Amino acid sequence: MRIAVLGTGMVGRTVAGRLVELDHHVVMGSRDAGNPHAAGWLATQPAGRAETGTFADAAAHGELVVNATSGVASLAALAAAGEENLAGKVLLDVANPLDFSQGMPPSLTVVNTDSLGERIQRAHPRARVVKALNTVNADLMVHPELIEDEHHVFVCGDDPAAKGTVAQLLGELGWPESSVVDLGGIAAARGTEMYLALWLALAQATGTARFNIKVVR
Amino acid sequence: MRIAVLGTGMVGRTVAGRLVELDHHVVMGSRDAGNPHAAGWLATQPAGRAETGTFADAAAHGELVVNATSGVASLAALAAAGEENLAGKVLLDVANPLDFSQGMPPSLTVVNTDSLGERIQRAHPRARVVKALNTVNADLMVHPELIEDEHHVFVCGDDPAAKGTVAQLLGELGWPESSVVDLGGIAAARGTEMYLALWLALAQATGTARFNIKVVR
Repeated sequence: MRIAVLGTGMVGRTVAGRLVELDHHVVMGSRDAGNPHAAGWLATQPAGRAETGTFADAAAHGELVVNATSGVASLAALAAAGEENLAGKVLLDVANPLDFSQGMPPSLTVVNTDSLGERIQRAHPRARVVKALNTVNADLMVHPELIEDEHHVFVCGDDPAAKGTVAQLLGELGWPESSVVDLGGIAAARGTEMYLALWLALAQATGTARFNIKVVR
Repeated sequence: MRIAVLGTGMVGRTVAGRLVELDHHVVMGSRDAGNPHAAGWLATQPAGRAETGTFADAAAHGELVVNATSGVASLAALAAAGEENLAGKVLLDVANPLDFSQGMPPSLTVVNTDSLGERIQRAHPRARVVKALNTVNADLMVHPELIEDEHHVFVCGDDPAAKGTVAQLLGELGWPESSVVDLGGIAAARGTEMYLALWLALAQATGTARFNIKVVR
């Protein structure tokens, strides 16, 4: 599949690299075409299936667009990607609206009665936004088998077919079908984003970011 | 132990009843001494180890005080309990600051850079506040064995000895030592309270409130 990965941070590079490994054709998008993180990433990729460009270049290329930008920059990045380049496409939003500007722990810039996922959907009504993977770190996003025990990933979005596409992609990344919990519409992004406050406390208490949760009944 | 349980809702009645079963001497506190929920609860309890009274009556009795009031009413309830009746005592806060006044899903009245647990600790600096059990429903609080798989309960608070007392009480309720995750100081209550947004989404998606999470690595 032709995939756009917007964002050149750890999450963007990790996800983009794994998608190339899985034989997808990936364009990594950034604000400026000459982004050094994107260039560094590109240098490690096999020829032919990886490219870099602007947010708009990437989005124009992708049949599916991954938002892996910093949460506080996501709306601007997606605006730069361009409404026409997003229209009708599955927009997999893995970002969290974390503000690190006041030091650690970061606070959330959107909470409670709204979420970044919803803001993105409202800003791009023709995109088919699916929130997923934002509850685990980059390594686990693309290598869930790093944790032996069963654990869960949450998806939500208003377009069932788009969620199906994302579930299939999650399967390629190693998430078994039974590990994918459908939380319903995009408003459930409030839950998975606000969970970050517990995630941060757990990361601090356990001294690792390589953990996840399993829902048990 | 002499325990006060403040609150006469489902959580208060369930926790108070289980503590009586475990041979503690419980006084259930409410705003008005003639509270019908408290009276109904008392009628089902064995003689000698259960009583009802005002918030102040209960807090004066308890060596340990459980805040099981509605989160939006907790600060007023604890003010009514009285600073002198709380001073030096372990105050186990199981409440969530959920506001149901705008319908479902409820929103949180405190989030992000503050929490109900912290507000209670600031309002009662001589109480030794420990936040715990607010991430599961009433049945699971007192019968964690209802879920066969391992699952976790989170404790946080600024007084390590108070957390130790709570961990011991959790053990009596059936939470194995390995299931108790210490998240550090009371500021981590932000995490366990904000998790409620995910809890609510999971409850809606799975159709049950009898679930919990297991942290896996």
